[in-house]
Amino acid sequence: MSEQLVQQLCDELTKLVLIDPHTHINPHSAASRTLADIMGYHYYTELAHSAGMPKERIEEPGLDPKTKVGRLVESLGHLDNTIQVSWLVELCRKFFGFNEEQITTSNWEALYDRAAAKMAEPDWEDQCLKQSGIERVFLTNDFDDPLEGFDTNRYIPCLRTDDLVFHLGKPEVRARLAKATGMECAGATSLRRAIGKLFEHFSSHGVRACAISLPPSFSPTAVSVNEVDPAIKRLLQGETLSADDATLVSRFVFWTLAEYCAEFRLPFDLMIGVNRRVYPEGVFQGQDLFDQRVSLIQYQALFNAFPQVKFPISVLAQISNHELVSYSWIFPNVYTNAHWWYSNIPAYIEIDTRARLQAVPQNKQIGYYSDMYKLEFAWPKFNMYRQSLARVLAQDFVIARKWSESRALALGRQVLRGNVETIFGV
Amino acid sequence: MSEQLVQQLCDELTKLVLIDPHTHINPHSAASRTLADIMGYHYYTELAHSAGMPKERIEEPGLDPKTKVGRLVESLGHLDNTIQVSWLVELCRKFFGFNEEQITTSNWEALYDRAAAKMAEPDWEDQCLKQSGIERVFLTNDFDDPLEGFDTNRYIPCLRTDDLVFHLGKPEVRARLAKATGMECAGATSLRRAIGKLFEHFSSHGVRACAISLPPSFSPTAVSVNEVDPAIKRLLQGETLSADDATLVSRFVFWTLAEYCAEFRLPFDLMIGVNRRVYPEGVFQGQDLFDQRVSLIQYQALFNAFPQVKFPISVLAQISNHELVSYSWIFPNVYTNAHWWYSNIPAYIEIDTRARLQAVPQNKQIGYYSDMYKLEFAWPKFNMYRQSLARVLAQDFVIARKWSESRALALGRQVLRGNVETIFGV
Amino acid sequence: MSEQLVQQLCDELTKLVLIDPHTHINPHSAASRTLADIMGYHYYTELAHSAGMPKERIEEPGLDPKTKVGRLVESLGHLDNTIQVSWLVELCRKFFGFNEEQITTSNWEALYDRAAAKMAEPDWEDQCLKQSGIERVFLTNDFDDPLEGFDTNRYIPCLRTDDLVFHLGKPEVRARLAKATGMECAGATSLRRAIGKLFEHFSSHGVRACAISLPPSFSPTAVSVNEVDPAIKRLLQGETLSADDATLVSRFVFWTLAEYCAEFRLPFDLMIGVNRRVYPEGVFQGQDLFDQRVSLIQYQALFNAFPQVKFPISVLAQISNHELVSYSWIFPNVYTNAHWWYSNIPAYIEIDTRARLQAVPQNKQIGYYSDMYKLEFAWPKFNMYRQSLARVLAQDFVIARKWSESRALALGRQVLRGNVETIFGV
Repeated sequence: MSEQLVQQLCDELTKLVLIDPHTHINPHSAASRTLADIMGYHYYTELAHSAGMPKERIEEPGLDPKTKVGRLVESLGHLDNTIQVSWLVELCRKFFGFNEEQITTSNWEALYDRAAAKMAEPDWEDQCLKQSGIERVFLTNDFDDPLEGFDTNRYIPCLRTDDLVFHLGKPEVRARLAKATGMECAGATSLRRAIGKLFEHFSSHGVRACAISLPPSFSPTAVSVNEVDPAIKRLLQGETLSADDATLVSRFVFWTLAEYCAEFRLPFDLMIGVNRRVYPEGVFQGQDLFDQRVSLIQYQALFNAFPQVKFPISVLAQISNHELVSYSWIFPNVYTNAHWWYSNIPAYIEIDTRARLQAVPQNKQIGYYSDMYKLEFAWPKFNMYRQSLARVLAQDFVIARKWSESRALALGRQVLRGNVETIFGV
Repeated sequence: MSEQLVQQLCDELTKLVLIDPHTHINPHSAASRTLADIMGYHYYTELAHSAGMPKERIEEPGLDPKTKVGRLVESLGHLDNTIQVSWLVELCRKFFGFNEEQITTSNWEALYDRAAAKMAEPDWEDQCLKQSGIERVFLTNDFDDPLEGFDTNRYIPCLRTDDLVFHLGKPEVRARLAKATGMECAGATSLRRAIGKLFEHFSSHGVRACAISLPPSFSPTAVSVNEVDPAIKRLLQGETLSADDATLVSRFVFWTLAEYCAEFRLPFDLMIGVNRRVYPEGVFQGQDLFDQRVSLIQYQALFNAFPQVKFPISVLAQISNHELVSYSWIFPNVYTNAHWWYSNIPAYIEIDTRARLQAVPQNKQIGYYSDMYKLEFAWPKFNMYRQSLARVLAQDFVIARKWSESRALALGRQVLRGNVETIFGV
Repeated sequence: MSEQLVQQLCDELTKLVLIDPHTHINPHSAASRTLADIMGYHYYTELAHSAGMPKERIEEPGLDPKTKVGRLVESLGHLDNTIQVSWLVELCRKFFGFNEEQITTSNWEALYDRAAAKMAEPDWEDQCLKQSGIERVFLTNDFDDPLEGFDTNRYIPCLRTDDLVFHLGKPEVRARLAKATGMECAGATSLRRAIGKLFEHFSSHGVRACAISLPPSFSPTAVSVNEVDPAIKRLLQGETLSADDATLVSRFVFWTLAEYCAEFRLPFDLMIGVNRRVYPEGVFQGQDLFDQRVSLIQYQALFNAFPQVKFPISVLAQISNHELVSYSWIFPNVYTNAHWWYSNIPAYIEIDTRARLQAVPQNKQIGYYSDMYKLEFAWPKFNMYRQSLARVLAQDFVIARKWSESRALALGRQVLRGNVETIFGV
């Protein structure tokens, strides 16, 4: 395949200004201040640890940012091959004038200082967004986030609900819920009402999605208030539930969320397949993995019960992509949502994108989100995706199906931006 | 890879006249009469529905063909990217002189009329087969099909057995069985005899395969007449069986079919992995999906018990292809059979074909079947496969292994046609 | 992608002399004596059988080597497409001056004789290794192997432990253990001591790895001596254990091996996912297959309990590669180990290599082992891998990431050889 054609398509796609439909940006501190904010991203700490660096060396309490970066740079030689390190080098080139092949123990300090100077500029956040071609960014907000003090037009609220579904057993979660809603829950009915208050609060602040990450074992079903009430009462009194009762409560809360999504006309982002704390001695955010033995058939009841709710779905295991393609092809309310975490590498993005573009209606595909914690990552991550997308458009459409370049680009633009607008209503 | 080489190989392969080893053609009405027959294919109705068109609009009772096509065309803009729509456009180009890029609300009517005129020609069926390079076509016959009134040399009977294995609990199925065999079943022994009568009937009409589609949970084992007789008696009396008893009956009937396949020397096509009615509110034939958690190890007992029966196997989940390759590599009676349904897109055909051509004996691979309901689809579907096959032959054989083009083409011809002849004895 | 670039990279990689980190070489008879040793490899016998040759014809007792080869050659026409037959032709070209396209019934005899003459040269073993670019070879030694009479510097011992974990119930295994250790086991404690003696023996002979193949159902956990002692006692007395007790014993022995690996600082090669004797009527070593429904989550407790033990992991099902990539990316003690058996074909090697090179630290990847039974196979098998590796380096690094060729080659050399040295300490 002509690399020139790929590059041409990619260059065109790069001109499009984007909305990033899923990130972990803190809107009060969206951009980085030093390279430590950037290299503290779990991708680097967990890979450095995996390559041999003791966790203690990475997470030593009180470590100043520059020393931390110096330590992490020592590991980069082992990680040079990874796409994650290519993001790092690429963003340093784009934003900080870095022009060497690799970040090494000999050149990192100058880079650190140059980057710090750049990031100290008062309008760095705006500069970064502008240079990255991003104009709006979805957040991941705790259910008790006040959603104040930032521009919700630029930083779009998204109600994240893992705590409600899976951690109501923790007193601090219940305390946060009570504080956020101003009401004490006494049972299933009042819990449902409290959740409704959260939706009202988020809705009045421009929320555009509800979201949750789910373990491979989860299988949602409708649970009646009567059925779950005794378990919820015991839970609210601080009792530890049996596994069966905990599942019942999770299903009830999850189903309640879906009902509110229907009422408030919110898409419900499902991120399916993560096992938490598989490696509990790992670094911060570097402990989760997955069991690939999961199926979307587990969500059959949900998809059938809520035809009016849009479910943009991300799958963690690459092998789940074929099910995702097929379920999106059949269910009007199932959407393919980007390339998540362990599947977010070009080898898998390309295979998965090919299948989606060949078999899922083009108005049902969200091409990509960055999942970033700091703004600087939107550029290299979307760039990686654009490269893969351009490759698929070139091979499968321009070459194999003889599409004109402009027709292929229109398809690319729809999955990169157009569908984010229509699906989330932004 | 040189696109020119791919095209050259594809052009050569296109010259070969084929036998289509699995279709849903109605031999009494094999070709289409209007575009509504073509666009009524579930691929278009289900994708239109998935992209947002209400089922009621697609399946409104009494809708005339032209109005129906007009409605479906409204959805094509959302489906333009799909390989299924590329089949549609390609067949309209091939057969109906269509020469625009897309079928749109402005050009469809002229196309509709031109197509209708073409299809009204008295020899359209013959023309279509000839232009498509197809000379014989396997059918999918209900067990009670009289198999009369058509040329069984052109349209080859295939005994489809889903109803017998999974739906004997339905009174209408039992009534059909009684009518077809002229005998009332009283228990396991007479049921077995009745099934034997079906084989005799089909055998006397040139049947070339027995076939069935199977859910992911199915795992065949031998069941003795004594063991199953009480359950079958209750079933025949109209009782609803427990899940365990229903499984027992299914296994007994399935095993009985395998025994008759041995006796009548018929290949037994297994199409593994479909869950029916996952989306019951979907359009006609657009309701089935799958659970990818399935393994060919579930068929271990079967493959060992019937070394004399050929089992051409289709798998629905793409991830099952590696098992299929490996089982075909080890078991003499396991054959790879085409690219089924949700796996029938170029992204997956290419990966799966590469693996099969690299690791399965070349006399054990059935390259492709069209699975079509109307003759017009053989052309674009086989074309899609030929493109993928040519790509793999070019890359993996001509380039990587330095084979001559003629040697690569011989391999291509064997999987396209030669093996259909040897495996099914046509 | 430029085929010339791929070839250039491959040629450079071919200059590197290698250590083969997993084989089944018999160090007392490492090279072949006739083509029958080569074509007796299970890949050829099982594929010939799969393509239609009766087992009896292949395994007829008392068959002389030349007749056996003549018979197997009859099947080659059906297997010509397979990568395994390309290994055969390639090694005959490299070592025996074969220069035709295919081995056929008309040309095999001359080849047989020429090969026999070559292999009769007294230094054939040295010649073969030298021409193949291999200098050291890991073995697969039974636990009671005396490890004497060969150069353990060239042929590196590896303690294979399947018999201990899964077959202690067989009297002959217990007898071999007693003989090897000079002690009779009376229960869990003495069994553990006996296993320690095996480690001491292997350690004093330069062992570099402990290894085992595991069925998909296996899930290791710590088992206390007290918990397992009664079951082991019954086992040692020749009783047949219940499935649960057999699992308990297997887990205890396995965990004990891991403890000794920690004590003796040995990597523990896990080869995950094989079901034995799925096709018991198959040819010798051509009976095993797999159930792809397996997850590395089953090894979570092990990876957490032994941070000081390196676990190079091979997976049998191709779909397991994504989990392997992800677990190696997170767990410091999990390493990717080559491309095993049914996954050892270019179609899968390429996909799997791409993902590993993009996401696993480069010091944690063992690129390839030959798994060979006879030395002549190292050449074509490593060649196959080098081709795939060169293709990935060209596409993903030189072209997509604009790496220099020398930088890409350094990465290639590290996974081909460097990591074998650092991981196994050779």
